[in-house]
Amino acid sequence: MRAFTLTSLATATALFANVGAVAVNPLPKPAKITWGTSGAFSVSNLSLSGSDNQLLKDGFDRATKAITELKWVPQATEAPIRSFAPIPTTTGTPSRKKARRQGYSTTNTTGILSSVKVDVKDTSATLQHDVDESYKLEIAAGSNSIEISAETVYGALHAFTTLQQIVISDGSGNLIVEQPVSIDDKPLYPVRGIMIDSGRNYISKNKILEQIDGMALSKLNVLHWHMVDAQSWAVELESYPNMVDDSYSENEVYSKDTMTAIIDYAAARGVRILPEIDMPGHANMGWRQIDESMLVCTDSWWADDATAVEPGPGQLDILHNKTYEVTAQVYKEVASIFPDNWFHIGGDELHVNCYNFSSKARDFFASGKTMGDLTQVWVDKALPNFSKQANKTFVMWEDVVMSEAAASGDVPKDVILQAWNNGLTNINSITAKGFRVIVSSSDFMYLDCGYGGWVGNDARYNVMVNPVANETNENITDFNWGAGGGSWCSPYKTWQRIYDYDFTQGLNETQKKLVVGSIAPLWSEQVDDVVLSGKIWPRAAALAELVWSGNRDEAGNKRTTELTARILNFREYLVANGVGASPLMPKFCLQNPHECDVSLDRTALGQ
Amino acid sequence: MRAFTLTSLATATALFANVGAVAVNPLPKPAKITWGTSGAFSVSNLSLSGSDNQLLKDGFDRATKAITELKWVPQATEAPIRSFAPIPTTTGTPSRKKARRQGYSTTNTTGILSSVKVDVKDTSATLQHDVDESYKLEIAAGSNSIEISAETVYGALHAFTTLQQIVISDGSGNLIVEQPVSIDDKPLYPVRGIMIDSGRNYISKNKILEQIDGMALSKLNVLHWHMVDAQSWAVELESYPNMVDDSYSENEVYSKDTMTAIIDYAAARGVRILPEIDMPGHANMGWRQIDESMLVCTDSWWADDATAVEPGPGQLDILHNKTYEVTAQVYKEVASIFPDNWFHIGGDELHVNCYNFSSKARDFFASGKTMGDLTQVWVDKALPNFSKQANKTFVMWEDVVMSEAAASGDVPKDVILQAWNNGLTNINSITAKGFRVIVSSSDFMYLDCGYGGWVGNDARYNVMVNPVANETNENITDFNWGAGGGSWCSPYKTWQRIYDYDFTQGLNETQKKLVVGSIAPLWSEQVDDVVLSGKIWPRAAALAELVWSGNRDEAGNKRTTELTARILNFREYLVANGVGASPLMPKFCLQNPHECDVSLDRTALGQ
Repeated sequence: MRAFTLTSLATATALFANVGAVAVNPLPKPAKITWGTSGAFSVSNLSLSGSDNQLLKDGFDRATKAITELKWVPQATEAPIRSFAPIPTTTGTPSRKKARRQGYSTTNTTGILSSVKVDVKDTSATLQHDVDESYKLEIAAGSNSIEISAETVYGALHAFTTLQQIVISDGSGNLIVEQPVSIDDKPLYPVRGIMIDSGRNYISKNKILEQIDGMALSKLNVLHWHMVDAQSWAVELESYPNMVDDSYSENEVYSKDTMTAIIDYAAARGVRILPEIDMPGHANMGWRQIDESMLVCTDSWWADDATAVEPGPGQLDILHNKTYEVTAQVYKEVASIFPDNWFHIGGDELHVNCYNFSSKARDFFASGKTMGDLTQVWVDKALPNFSKQANKTFVMWEDVVMSEAAASGDVPKDVILQAWNNGLTNINSITAKGFRVIVSSSDFMYLDCGYGGWVGNDARYNVMVNPVANETNENITDFNWGAGGGSWCSPYKTWQRIYDYDFTQGLNETQKKLVVGSIAPLWSEQVDDVVLSGKIWPRAAALAELVWSGNRDEAGNKRTTELTARILNFREYLVANGVGASPLMPKFCLQNPHECDVSLDRTALGQ
Repeated sequence: MRAFTLTSLATATALFANVGAVAVNPLPKPAKITWGTSGAFSVSNLSLSGSDNQLLKDGFDRATKAITELKWVPQATEAPIRSFAPIPTTTGTPSRKKARRQGYSTTNTTGILSSVKVDVKDTSATLQHDVDESYKLEIAAGSNSIEISAETVYGALHAFTTLQQIVISDGSGNLIVEQPVSIDDKPLYPVRGIMIDSGRNYISKNKILEQIDGMALSKLNVLHWHMVDAQSWAVELESYPNMVDDSYSENEVYSKDTMTAIIDYAAARGVRILPEIDMPGHANMGWRQIDESMLVCTDSWWADDATAVEPGPGQLDILHNKTYEVTAQVYKEVASIFPDNWFHIGGDELHVNCYNFSSKARDFFASGKTMGDLTQVWVDKALPNFSKQANKTFVMWEDVVMSEAAASGDVPKDVILQAWNNGLTNINSITAKGFRVIVSSSDFMYLDCGYGGWVGNDARYNVMVNPVANETNENITDFNWGAGGGSWCSPYKTWQRIYDYDFTQGLNETQKKLVVGSIAPLWSEQVDDVVLSGKIWPRAAALAELVWSGNRDEAGNKRTTELTARILNFREYLVANGVGASPLMPKFCLQNPHECDVSLDRTALGQ
């Protein structure tokens, strides 16, 4: 990697007060960060003092290992935009350097940092919803120690990942912190996460751990694990050992040991695992090994009306008593494996057409009742049934309240709803009803969008000439020309799209308090180990900053453009740390700040 | 991996004559392949006879190594579509098995194959355009040898990659060929390739070799290497050693040794490298290290009118004498490194606005001449100038004939044009003018489409509510809802889209003969080593079959649906061979043939 000339960068950035006079800023940007100006520190043989807590010691060891092994040189840094005449002339002097950047001399340093003092108030706090994640990190001018204070271990772990991002190489192998710094940091939202789907395709343990590494570095704290779906069941359970006969192979199974290893790895990095067993929809594989009579419409894909959003179909029969016995037992065992106080019980995309395959449901409907009434039966029966097994907070997809199949009566208000349709509209509706909400709006943050369709034998691609080519309205597009090409939630959500999302817009204060955070889902019809990390990263880092410290500067303006250098550098940092993140731009854009901005106007995004 | 029950598959497929009574078929599908029915062969200690040619021996060693090390078990196989009542009932009997597939017994074999006899007519033929790639492969009932004949070594190499795909494991570790087989195979087109772009982001040698591995397995034979662009120059030249000062780093440089190693690796696998030095547009980095006065508008990105399609801009000054001296020398040295008789000299996307930054061009235009006249100057001066250095066939982007900047007069008819705009229309126009054409239509086969935009400071993402949500025409879409989200060539081109492309539709016989083949480009603004293979594969394999044996069955019907199992299996095979191809579907669809077809109708795509 080419060494940046930190001295010249420092000179340049000193002119640009809003950015800070340093080359590197952590991602997510802290709530408050103030850089000094008295000069750099050398960093040498950092040692930890102040706590014997094992989680802390492990976190510290990871951070110092990354610092000393990577000797990170910033790969993209913020700089003032260069001067540019609105109408350029050939006589203008481009500010881009002609010569390739040279190796650079060691920055003069003003002191040596060798100790990290940590003060954690409550080392017994457990990793659950709303655990205090705040921390302070102070490197005072003239000091030889880095002072960290936090309410809990989890705040201190965040301090370490901040620290490892601000200790950089001076390009000659010497580690430095560029300036004194004072950080007072805490997240805007307690729920900040990504969702992986191991039901459509298996995801290996190691690949899940890689996601957790990326999450820890970007201060995401909830891994929503959509474990199973109609297509496969890889979760090994003692209660029903035959369910994994519907895994994709003997090797593609999550044993209890594997799940526990993933949970422990995540917990050590401040990441909760929110397991999801999707019920009563998206159900076939696994369940069918117990009793096929619990299932309906599993063979209905080519039915005259839609019974599912995709192959293969299948739903648990809400009117079948066995359904409750089995789902309770499955819930009980999975809930006992995962220590989190939250549990995701699914609840999305129930199709009335599917239930028409159940004789019990047909009788139910014939008596004048509706699909909403049927959903209400599920809510009234299944939720108390689950609670009896293990008392957890339930997360459900918004559908139970916000779809054609929504329960016709009451849904307990302590259920947390995950909003995925209609962007701001559904967030507004859900919070207006008094529910807490997790924002997963598909229009803004579904990471699987834009890859075309995946179903086979699809004649829609077999079109040679654009049928709407002669239309003059540029918004008129065709399936194969400009539109989704089979991806229902096209277009692809770029990091700018995700970061720009003001998901509390239009909410009153009461409603805003019901927004607990946001989770970006990656559905896995076109995902397995090979492409998982590239589809999640670095876009999830844009979400990470959005829910940690927001998308606006102190003046209230969107700071998406300021994020550019941070996220470009962070992508390289992820790759260096073994997380296979995608490149966002030509490296030219990393090495030439702002030269790839489409607009010269710094306020183009406004408020 | 789970073992398939080959015996039961064989029983099933025997009912379906169009498919062939075997589990595995090679990709691309051979021009003619006839499976026998007398039963399987064991394969043991294959040895080669009939040739001492080193290329052949190496190719044979690679094939036998893959066969013995992978012991491939088919991961997706064709099977007859199951019976399904148009209006399903719950009393119907699903044909999907309830139980997970069991381990299976060894198929009875009828003989042992232990020798491969190769007969190559002309072992001296070199790897150049139109080299004969045909081959025959015969495994006769009762024989103990595999007989291969070919006109050239390159045909025999294709025979080996066919062979390695049809020798599979019986699931107990024994290698078999399922049935006697007779293959008479040759490609439809002599040019079958992919394009990589190492100008926007560097691509490492090893990652390029990985693409060549995938190409050899799918019988693609041309790697079009867009080596440089305005953003970086990584090609080390003795003539102008300073050009690589505009590489992204000291480590991101192609030395002569590196280029030669890539060329040799490709040649050993029957893959030509077609190098592209893009001139006179897309020029800045590298060139500027020689003489900045040759360049215009390199600092014009934020000009009032577009001077380039993306940051950064820059074009070589067509009216500057130094331009011809330098481009000739660069051409000469690169042409000496690459042995191919073809050379791609670019020629795309010349912007008249850019040339308005040249005082010489302004005088030229002031005299009443046009951009087309300026392009003509380039054609008339540069091409003979290049030919003097090394006499090669030039490939150029279609723009020199098909754009607003098209040359106003004659372009030599021996220039091969690469068509990328307007699908069938431009292919028709170019061949009507008498030019040979390489099909790279962006609407069908640009592999970089659909990933949103990459330029920064882009306010278009900062929109919270769909401005056209209330329109009733489903073809009306907005930037962030349904349309490209910043990707100019959205949507993403799926393997079905690529395979369905009838790129000679509407051409007369004379025009058809001018179509030399097809190359699928992957532009690299959002690509580097991390995601390269996943974006190219397995979609390039759909193109590979399209240009090898077409997209229709013997009855003339589109066989896209028949390709499904082949490409799903081939994707897994690529991954097993170290090529990081993307998954196309849930593994459910691999293990349950046709269950993920959106339509039950086998003739949905028609002719």
